[in-house]
Amino acid sequence: MKAAVLTIGDELIIGQVVDTNSAWLSEQLTDAGFEVIRIVSIPDNPAVIEDVANELLELADLVISTGGLGPTSDDRTKQVLCKMFGGTLVLHEPSLELITKLFHKRGLPLTETNKNQALIPSSCTPILNLNGTAPGMLFKRRNSLFVALPGVPFEMKSMFDTGVLPLINELNVGTQVLRFTVNTFGIAESFLSDMLSTFESQLPQNIALAYLPGPSGIRLRLTARGSKGGNLGSLVQREVDKLRQLLGTAIYGFNSDTLPSVVLDLLRKQEKTLAVAESCTGGYVAHLLTQVPGSSQVFKGGVVAYSNELKVKMLNVNPKIITEHGAVSSQTVDQMLDGVIACCNADFAIAVSGIAGPTGDTPGKPVGTTWIGVASPTNRNLELHTFGNLRDINIQRASYTALNMLRLMLLGRQ
Amino acid sequence: MKAAVLTIGDELIIGQVVDTNSAWLSEQLTDAGFEVIRIVSIPDNPAVIEDVANELLELADLVISTGGLGPTSDDRTKQVLCKMFGGTLVLHEPSLELITKLFHKRGLPLTETNKNQALIPSSCTPILNLNGTAPGMLFKRRNSLFVALPGVPFEMKSMFDTGVLPLINELNVGTQVLRFTVNTFGIAESFLSDMLSTFESQLPQNIALAYLPGPSGIRLRLTARGSKGGNLGSLVQREVDKLRQLLGTAIYGFNSDTLPSVVLDLLRKQEKTLAVAESCTGGYVAHLLTQVPGSSQVFKGGVVAYSNELKVKMLNVNPKIITEHGAVSSQTVDQMLDGVIACCNADFAIAVSGIAGPTGDTPGKPVGTTWIGVASPTNRNLELHTFGNLRDINIQRASYTALNMLRLMLLGRQ
Repeated sequence: MKAAVLTIGDELIIGQVVDTNSAWLSEQLTDAGFEVIRIVSIPDNPAVIEDVANELLELADLVISTGGLGPTSDDRTKQVLCKMFGGTLVLHEPSLELITKLFHKRGLPLTETNKNQALIPSSCTPILNLNGTAPGMLFKRRNSLFVALPGVPFEMKSMFDTGVLPLINELNVGTQVLRFTVNTFGIAESFLSDMLSTFESQLPQNIALAYLPGPSGIRLRLTARGSKGGNLGSLVQREVDKLRQLLGTAIYGFNSDTLPSVVLDLLRKQEKTLAVAESCTGGYVAHLLTQVPGSSQVFKGGVVAYSNELKVKMLNVNPKIITEHGAVSSQTVDQMLDGVIACCNADFAIAVSGIAGPTGDTPGKPVGTTWIGVASPTNRNLELHTFGNLRDINIQRASYTALNMLRLMLLGRQ
Repeated sequence: MKAAVLTIGDELIIGQVVDTNSAWLSEQLTDAGFEVIRIVSIPDNPAVIEDVANELLELADLVISTGGLGPTSDDRTKQVLCKMFGGTLVLHEPSLELITKLFHKRGLPLTETNKNQALIPSSCTPILNLNGTAPGMLFKRRNSLFVALPGVPFEMKSMFDTGVLPLINELNVGTQVLRFTVNTFGIAESFLSDMLSTFESQLPQNIALAYLPGPSGIRLRLTARGSKGGNLGSLVQREVDKLRQLLGTAIYGFNSDTLPSVVLDLLRKQEKTLAVAESCTGGYVAHLLTQVPGSSQVFKGGVVAYSNELKVKMLNVNPKIITEHGAVSSQTVDQMLDGVIACCNADFAIAVSGIAGPTGDTPGKPVGTTWIGVASPTNRNLELHTFGNLRDINIQRASYTALNMLRLMLLGRQ
């Protein structure tokens, strides 16, 4: 079964708003066993809406549109739907009742414009909107379904869950889609693809592999399709086991695991605490850790020693070391580790000092030069990394690299 | 001149990744005077890529695609482009040179897969990628242009700015689109729209107003259209002046100004330094500040005092104060200000302590309860804010609110 998503709105097409509806809907449809073949965004233009909707109905068994149902004059979708599927606009009493209640609750008067929201094509099956004013509409044409939903994300989502999903689950009996993500760090995409070339060529036909690169590493996603009640789960598990064999500790977790959450879990299991001393990452390592709920159990905090003055004053770095070797040096980072462990009374520590850019480079130390150190009560690892020229990306890469070094140390691999 | 955006990738079509490239590109193209007529996302499928690219080339004068250029086997766009525009894959020496340099800088060996990234169709004009491995490609067919860019956002953006924009600006003569953004903080959207209802109704027909809300406040964007060489600039300036009158210090800046960059500029002008003491924001305030290039001139650093132990040990908060009033109290935040000013030897300071959630609430202090303090050498302001239930949003809101309080203090308005 094929599906397409159509998002309607001038605000999307001029780049004013990032379209998050289509990703959400595509994920739901994929999970429900559909193959999403296209996502299209178009302006609030009746002729274009009609053309593209007809085109998508030829390609897909199910088309879901969002947007173009608001009360303002730039929304003309309902007229187009009458033209496409027949019928005239008629008043839908249950929707009018909901709209009236909504306005009463908010203490607002009900205008004609609001009442018109309850008008729907006589050819549709209405979908109630419990969180807003525009009802959804479901149309049939031959073997295809067209569903029009409002564009406000929380209204759309709730209507999809209650009014659309039960219907399409009935349509799509038999198939099942299973997704599993293997999250890796430290191997560049091209090396990873070399390492996995045999694995890829031996993948069962109904399992697809995708590389999802980002600043926190590369996630490998396996998507399996098969019949319901089959052995899809064990089929995927077998491939995941192969990846474990091939990639070892480059795998930091699965599915929703993140590097910070994995590091915090390891610390929690070992009943150890962590502190960080950040120069070029300027608080980002601490932010990544404290984004995770419950991080306060093991993360004590740390020092953002952005200036050399603070490296000396708060982390007890010897000013001679900075003069002789520079703030971006293994010697400075080594003393930052000592300093932050002492002042935070922590078991483990991370320290980072680098040149984030765009300026600040010195002879032999280009922008992106970064020393990263991690320390346990019995061990220490210092690494020199050379990242790129973009400040934001350098901050992210340095932070995730530091977390990964700590992860390996917590695993006893360093 | 019409334009279309084509984003390629299985990860988009199954909803794993939200497509932000198309919104960014649409905005740039609209600014450059193009009418964006369609945004389409498709899977990594050669036949579909060919079909849809050809279709869009019939509809638009300019088609920009992103994605499908990676080294892994799920990327097959370059073969399709050879088929569409003729030519064979040939080695592009300048790209190979850049790729070699990139790998050399990172200390990684260059594999065949990497080298293959420098292969491009002989029919294209290459666009250099200074931040990654996949070069961009520009093709001509009759009067239409097709531009293929990689999908990694920061690579794509930089290549569009340097390699594509100058070219399309030459294409599009006659019309001009001018955008100006007025950035506000501290007034909720519904109040703002009430305050601006008369202003909105009196806007000239060729200027549109849009509200762009986000965690860092609401940006008001004016979009004006007119002929080149007209008085569009002064027309927009008149409306901006009206907004200044209406909104006063709720306006923190214009266009690319951010709250952190404005605060850092004010500090620089007054030749003062800043330090931060963060509990619930966990390093995010420091991160926002250090994201800005050159922040080291005025931002000294600070303490992430996530645990109470560190509040006492590093910021010299009296443990009795924490026991009596709690870590989330005006008294604690007041002492955090004293402590961070002393240990960082800074002129100005920010301190934040709150309950980010999802747990940690106590009677009378629900999740979202946050005390924020800012201090100058002669003044101090402490405020209690109650944010919502979402951890991420609470961290962001608390951080931006703190920066805005400091901004008002630097302006002498508090």
